[in-house]
Formats: sequence, C-alpha cells, structure tokens
Amino acid sequence: MRNVRMVVSYDGTHYNGFQTQPSGNTIQDVIEAGIKSLTGEDLRINGSGRTDAGVHAKGQVFNFLTESRIPVDRWALALNTRLPEDIVALRADEVSHDFHARFSAKKKTYRYSIDTNKFPDLFTRHHRFHHHAPLNVSAMREGLAALVGEHDFTSFASTQSTQLSHVRTIYEASIEESEGGLDIFVTGNGFLYNMVRIIAGTAIWIGEGKLEASDVSGIIQAKDRTKAGPTAMPHGLMLWHVEYPE
Amino acid sequence: MRNVRMVVSYDGTHYNGFQTQPSGNTIQDVIEAGIKSLTGEDLRINGSGRTDAGVHAKGQVFNFLTESRIPVDRWALALNTRLPEDIVALRADEVSHDFHARFSAKKKTYRYSIDTNKFPDLFTRHHRFHHHAPLNVSAMREGLAALVGEHDFTSFASTQSTQLSHVRTIYEASIEESEGGLDIFVTGNGFLYNMVRIIAGTAIWIGEGKLEASDVSGIIQAKDRTKAGPTAMPHGLMLWHVEYPE
Repeated sequence: MRNVRMVVSYDGTHYNGFQTQPSGNTIQDVIEAGIKSLTGEDLRINGSGRTDAGVHAKGQVFNFLTESRIPVDRWALALNTRLPEDIVALRADEVSHDFHARFSAKKKTYRYSIDTNKFPDLFTRHHRFHHHAPLNVSAMREGLAALVGEHDFTSFASTQSTQLSHVRTIYEASIEESEGGLDIFVTGNGFLYNMVRIIAGTAIWIGEGKLEASDVSGIIQAKDRTKAGPTAMPHGLMLWHVEYPE
Repeated sequence: MRNVRMVVSYDGTHYNGFQTQPSGNTIQDVIEAGIKSLTGEDLRINGSGRTDAGVHAKGQVFNFLTESRIPVDRWALALNTRLPEDIVALRADEVSHDFHARFSAKKKTYRYSIDTNKFPDLFTRHHRFHHHAPLNVSAMREGLAALVGEHDFTSFASTQSTQLSHVRTIYEASIEESEGGLDIFVTGNGFLYNMVRIIAGTAIWIGEGKLEASDVSGIIQAKDRTKAGPTAMPHGLMLWHVEYPE
C-alpha cells in the first residue's frame, strides 16, 4: 500500500466544487472515477480542502492509498488519460503513511483575480471577475494588510460555517497589478467557508470607497458577518498553492 | 446615413467562423442580430476578413451603414447589451463613406499561441495549442524570417483557395517567448485561406526538426501545398490587429 500525493489543476466552471456531495458532479467524483478506471480501486481521495462551485485550482493537492504498481512518476500522465479536459493532474509523489492532504497542510494561498478593462477580456472571463469602475488599489492594499495576523475571522465567514473555532492566521495579503487587471493573493494557515471571497468582496468595497481601509480592524473585532463586504463571485477565485512541511 | 466602424473581440470556440454561411452560427450572424435588436435595421456588416471555425479575435474590425442616431461613442456599450458573453464590442468610431473594413485594411496581424507546458494550462486551453515536445525556437525564428517579403504563397494556402493571385506581402513574422509558452506573430497585407495556420504548422515542424529553416525558401518556390507543414489547429489562432490608413 502506497500513499500517493498528487497536485491537480482544474477549471471549476462546470462543477459543483471539489468535494463529493449528494448533488454530484464534483471534481473529487471525477478524479475518483478516473482512478477507478485506471486501477480498479474504489478508493476515496483526501483533498487539501473543498473549493466552492465555480472556483478553480492551479494547485489543489490530494492523497490516496493505493495497491497499484503504477510508478509514481507515471501517475500524472496515466490519470490524465482518464480525466476530462478541464481537470489535469500535474505531478505525483509518494509520501509517508502519516501524510494527509488536509491535516498536513501548513499554508494555503488563494488568488482572486479582477479584470479591470472597460469591456471584459473574453479570454480570461471564466477565471477573472470583471469590474470596470476605478479601484483605489493603495487603499485596498492597506485594508488587506490589516487582516494579517491571528484573528477570529467570524466577520469574514459565511454564517453557514460549522467550524468550532473561527480563529485563523493570515500570513500575507497583497495585490499584484498588471495591465488591465489585478490579483489579490491571500496566504493563511486555513480558511473558513467563503472567507477568501468575503475578503475579496471587502477589498473591492474598499477600492470603491464604500468602506475605508481603516474600517477593517473594527470589522474583525465585530465578529459579525454583516459588517464586512459582499461575498465576491466564485469564478474569480483560484486555489493557488498548498504548502506542506518538507 | 453614417458609416460606423467597430472593433470586436470574440472567443470563436463555439462558432462556425466569422462570416455568414449556409450552416449558420457565425459571429457575423450574431452581431447583425444584435444590431437589429438595437436599431431595427436589417443590415449587413463588412468584416475585415473571415476567420475559420474555432479561430478567435482580439481585434476584428467591421463597418456598417446605419440610420441610427445612437452616438458613436455609445455604440460599443449599447451593442454589448445584445451580444452573448463570448463576443464583445470594444470601440466604435464614425468613418467616411468610402471606408470598407476589408478593402481599406492596410495590414493584418495574427497571433498563433502555443502552450509548451508538460501538461496543458487549463486556463488558456481554448486559445493556445498544447505542444509539449521541445521546440527549437531559434530555428523557428529563422524559418519565419524567410517568409518575410512579397511572395507567391501557394505552398502556404489551402488547396481550396479561390483567390486569383496568391501573391501576398509578409512584413513581419516573429516569436515572443514567455514562461510555458510561445506566441508566433505574423503581419501581412493580407492572408490566403488557412495561410497563418499553415505558417504556424510549418514553424512547429521546423521547431521539431521535421523541416529545416533553410527549407522555407524552397517551399515558397515550389508553389505546392504538400511541401509545407500541416495546417495547425484553429484554436491557437487569433486575429490580433487590423491596421488602416490614418
């Protein structure tokens, strides 16, 4: 029995999110079906975490225990022959039996991408949120900086969150500007349900002047979802990278 | 009656090309229907040229004569309310009555985009051709350079071409490299049916070593389609820019 870790990218446009759920059509279902058609094994994969319907991944990570003798460096190529064109395995390695994609994760980085062109750039429309009105990027940066640290992020979690604790640590929250767009990157030790989308929605409100950067500390302290900005559209969000201890 | 020129971008994935044809589902049909729903006019637009099924445009240009009093600087915004999400009008201006998007065009630039990552970048898969095997980019550049000038491009035209003359001028043919990809840009005074895709296919064969850069002059001289490389897949191609006299 080997414990295989894989990195996978997906275009979440047509899926009900990563994690298996009763309504079906999830990334996890498709990957598990792919593995079954490859090895005959009816196994479950452990994802590093769920992503919402419509959210994408550049580097989602999962692991699974397999009896298969497929050499680990052939796994990505082999699995890709069984995956649809909007899910692609990027690499695989063998890890020790105590590795679990979710519990072993140290840091996660998400990107929220905004197309600021007057009219949308069609070729990125499925993974960038189009927002033409001018955004005050330096105010957005200042607001994001106020999130860094260990806080109770109740104000930035869906009221449907079932987590016992809403305390999380954000290590970095920054913006990269490019021609016709900007990318918000947020790195933390874990994220609550809808947390990055609410951070993005709040940053956009700050950029629009509907909130001030200096409001962010008070929003955190309020522990009240209604104080933060809206939940930004899912299609702008991408799970960028999951970091594990060496 | 005003002559309006518009620049439009489209994702050609789901269309049978730009120009109206019996089988329907063309970009032109959709734009003309959009104009009709806006002004009530049953008019024909003049495109700068056709693009094949599956080919995209960043800056296709068309013109049309209209009685509408919509101010020209409102046309793009207005038309976009009547267009699907994979076609977007970018700008409009009023031009003199002797302007015709096809006959007045001075130069056209196409881009052919190649994803060279081991596994495809999902987020560009509809507008880049995935080709992982190593490509000799300097040989490709040398081969493309040999196309520059005025030549009979019969070897680089579909045998279905109905043009009387196959003489065209290529002003520039170059490659831009980026991380995980390369873009071939070709600028000319006009292109024959499938010409840019055959140029791209030939450049890829040179990159793979199936042809030599020094073969290109002979291929041109042969005036024989079978001497050039294959017709590259349409989805990597994008009409980039159409230039008109000031």
